[in-house]
Amino acid sequence: MLAELKREVLAANLELARRNLAIYTWGNASGIDRGLGLVVIKPSGVDYAELTEDLMTVVDLEGRVAEGKLRPSSDTPTHLELYKNFPGIGGAVHTHSPWATAWAQALMSLPCYGTTHADHFYGAVPCTPPLTREEIEFDYEVNTGKVIVRAFAELDHLAVQGVLVAQHGPFTWGSSPAQAVENSVVLEEIARMAVLTRQINPGITQVDHVLLDKHYLRKHGTNAYYGQKPAAE
Amino acid sequence: MLAELKREVLAANLELARRNLAIYTWGNASGIDRGLGLVVIKPSGVDYAELTEDLMTVVDLEGRVAEGKLRPSSDTPTHLELYKNFPGIGGAVHTHSPWATAWAQALMSLPCYGTTHADHFYGAVPCTPPLTREEIEFDYEVNTGKVIVRAFAELDHLAVQGVLVAQHGPFTWGSSPAQAVENSVVLEEIARMAVLTRQINPGITQVDHVLLDKHYLRKHGTNAYYGQKPAAE
Amino acid sequence: MLAELKREVLAANLELARRNLAIYTWGNASGIDRGLGLVVIKPSGVDYAELTEDLMTVVDLEGRVAEGKLRPSSDTPTHLELYKNFPGIGGAVHTHSPWATAWAQALMSLPCYGTTHADHFYGAVPCTPPLTREEIEFDYEVNTGKVIVRAFAELDHLAVQGVLVAQHGPFTWGSSPAQAVENSVVLEEIARMAVLTRQINPGITQVDHVLLDKHYLRKHGTNAYYGQKPAAE
Amino acid sequence: MLAELKREVLAANLELARRNLAIYTWGNASGIDRGLGLVVIKPSGVDYAELTEDLMTVVDLEGRVAEGKLRPSSDTPTHLELYKNFPGIGGAVHTHSPWATAWAQALMSLPCYGTTHADHFYGAVPCTPPLTREEIEFDYEVNTGKVIVRAFAELDHLAVQGVLVAQHGPFTWGSSPAQAVENSVVLEEIARMAVLTRQINPGITQVDHVLLDKHYLRKHGTNAYYGQKPAAE
Repeated sequence: MLAELKREVLAANLELARRNLAIYTWGNASGIDRGLGLVVIKPSGVDYAELTEDLMTVVDLEGRVAEGKLRPSSDTPTHLELYKNFPGIGGAVHTHSPWATAWAQALMSLPCYGTTHADHFYGAVPCTPPLTREEIEFDYEVNTGKVIVRAFAELDHLAVQGVLVAQHGPFTWGSSPAQAVENSVVLEEIARMAVLTRQINPGITQVDHVLLDKHYLRKHGTNAYYGQKPAAE
Repeated sequence: MLAELKREVLAANLELARRNLAIYTWGNASGIDRGLGLVVIKPSGVDYAELTEDLMTVVDLEGRVAEGKLRPSSDTPTHLELYKNFPGIGGAVHTHSPWATAWAQALMSLPCYGTTHADHFYGAVPCTPPLTREEIEFDYEVNTGKVIVRAFAELDHLAVQGVLVAQHGPFTWGSSPAQAVENSVVLEEIARMAVLTRQINPGITQVDHVLLDKHYLRKHGTNAYYGQKPAAE
Repeated sequence: MLAELKREVLAANLELARRNLAIYTWGNASGIDRGLGLVVIKPSGVDYAELTEDLMTVVDLEGRVAEGKLRPSSDTPTHLELYKNFPGIGGAVHTHSPWATAWAQALMSLPCYGTTHADHFYGAVPCTPPLTREEIEFDYEVNTGKVIVRAFAELDHLAVQGVLVAQHGPFTWGSSPAQAVENSVVLEEIARMAVLTRQINPGITQVDHVLLDKHYLRKHGTNAYYGQKPAAE
Repeated sequence: MLAELKREVLAANLELARRNLAIYTWGNASGIDRGLGLVVIKPSGVDYAELTEDLMTVVDLEGRVAEGKLRPSSDTPTHLELYKNFPGIGGAVHTHSPWATAWAQALMSLPCYGTTHADHFYGAVPCTPPLTREEIEFDYEVNTGKVIVRAFAELDHLAVQGVLVAQHGPFTWGSSPAQAVENSVVLEEIARMAVLTRQINPGITQVDHVLLDKHYLRKHGTNAYYGQKPAAE
């Protein structure tokens, strides 16, 4: 069942380690089959070196295990909230990559200081508010998803495909598991650049909307002219 | 004698180099056989590339060499203090990994700024006070162990499995040599994240106890639900 | 056509990835045949791992594709402005390398703090002013080239073979594609050193002109005595 | 002639690249045969990948080429000043390693903040004053050596085997070329740690002399007890 999606999700998880976004078991990637309403996700606490397609866990959107002998990632309820609330996404990723996590721990949204950011995220990447005591104590992982969804109440989740969960770390998503991983890689890189930018010039402000539009839309808009064909995200 | 423990201690020492926690001979890992009261430790000043199981030194808890032609690590008396005072630990590690060492040199305990820290250490990782002139001049390595033990007088050494020795660097411990190494890896990573977090937001404070409890206990408590079986550290 | 130049340009693009100046497709290198008035450049959005000589695009100085099935890099018009206005250059490179990009995002020229810089760039590497709304909205990539050229109105583009485009990132050039890549590598390294230098001593100022002359000219002047023959850039 | 020393000097130069202390040709190592009064040094501007024993240059203490077809490193006169003034050293190294170079560019001596430093350098690593206009314009490389020697007028060059040349970068030395390289590696690492230490605690001061004595002398004194035999530097 879902052999191709399992392959994609396995590859996405391995890419997290290969791109230095996750040590030990500190990251997880998932993918969804929208037709079947089933999500493939990494099992909890299993080393990347030992992951195989057959070890991937399959759950339905209520979190019931549909296939797999291993317990799914403890972050599964967060992934499910994303799939249920963000139509059109096909993959999701969570890591503790150090620069993005530092912004999350600092309780700061990541400002857009240049075209590297603007090429991939249409404006600042928001940091959620910290969860309340009640949100932490009951249904913590579900509430982590809900606080993300609320942060996008007024924001297009397809134009900004990532978030910083306060005191925790980044989540990203995308059209596929691979796209969600790429967004995590980019988020880490622009998080690093933004720290350095502010160190060099503490008074720096975000780029103007004109430059943001130019760069984001030349890669992602209907008139995109970057790459070999119109971007279809 | 102690063939399996020697293998584990050798592997732990090599892992220090592989994880970039130690260059040259700047780190050492040990393990204890509680039944025999014997500790296996790296010989002093030998390159990781030349280490073999047979070169490992075996000492008793008073530091007398029980086996091995080479002098044990000069930090052996510190390891022994840890084994004598921290019941239940099976391995210990000392490194000069740069980010953790920077906190130790700064004479600052490492605050808990997020869930990456809370997943592994139940609260701030303490920095000891500097040793006194007398403690440095007589029995220096023993006193290094004693200052660590005193720092845990009111702290559970199984809930916070590491320390920053002022002006020196990190020591970690764990249920096994491998677990002690993993704690050194994590300590280095959260030490880095904490520097970046404070750089982004100098006014940041530690996470609330509710979040600390949630994350530490979902991995380590009796109701742990992370991974494939209850954590048994 | 242009087989040798295609080889050089391919090698230059691969070197960008190998030197960690570009992830994904975030960099591009080009080279020019001055006799034919043709420029070889990386195709847009193609992974470095998939690049071959045959995939390289050939354009004339007006940007018309002379050979190649793929769309040239979206930054091609910027490269062309450089070739048209900077006589004597044979290669050009654009990257988003993090330390140089941070200076560009900080809207700051890179000061010359030492001999590493002075060995390669004859004084500060300028940061352009941000493009105006009109320059962004119409002919953006051409205008990116024009703002670079204007920054060198009073500056010798052969003595300072690189620039920081505000809110964007570095462009470098050189006698060949390989030389342009080397200049990108050096620019990234001195951009990093300069951040660290200012962190250690915020009051630091640029080196005196005497030291700048000494180092630049011992490698690049007519009396150069570095290396095995007079430098011929 | 000097086959063994050439092997050592070649190995030392290659180690500079392998330890990430030098990119391109940005570093050089040399060694001296005190009996013959001859110095083996890297040729100028030759890539590490192309270096062979036969390409090494041999010069006498006045800088006259005794063997070798290639021009010696442009820094040769600096190395010779060190050999002439620092009796007992057998090797010397110059790099532009980024963290040590940042301290040199910041015109700051490297303070001793902890035992990692104290294990290898007996106190702060001095930064020279900038060279004067006259020192730069005439016999620059000789004067670079002289300013180093003057910085050690009141300092034991065997207890502190390295220096930061203002606005330039680190030079180190040691009993052999390999030992000089190791000192460069250590200097880079403690330069990094010191930046981080000051970032965490800007008010930090150097360690007390008691701790400095303890650590330096347990590795280097006549009663040294680190390693497998008394250190014989």
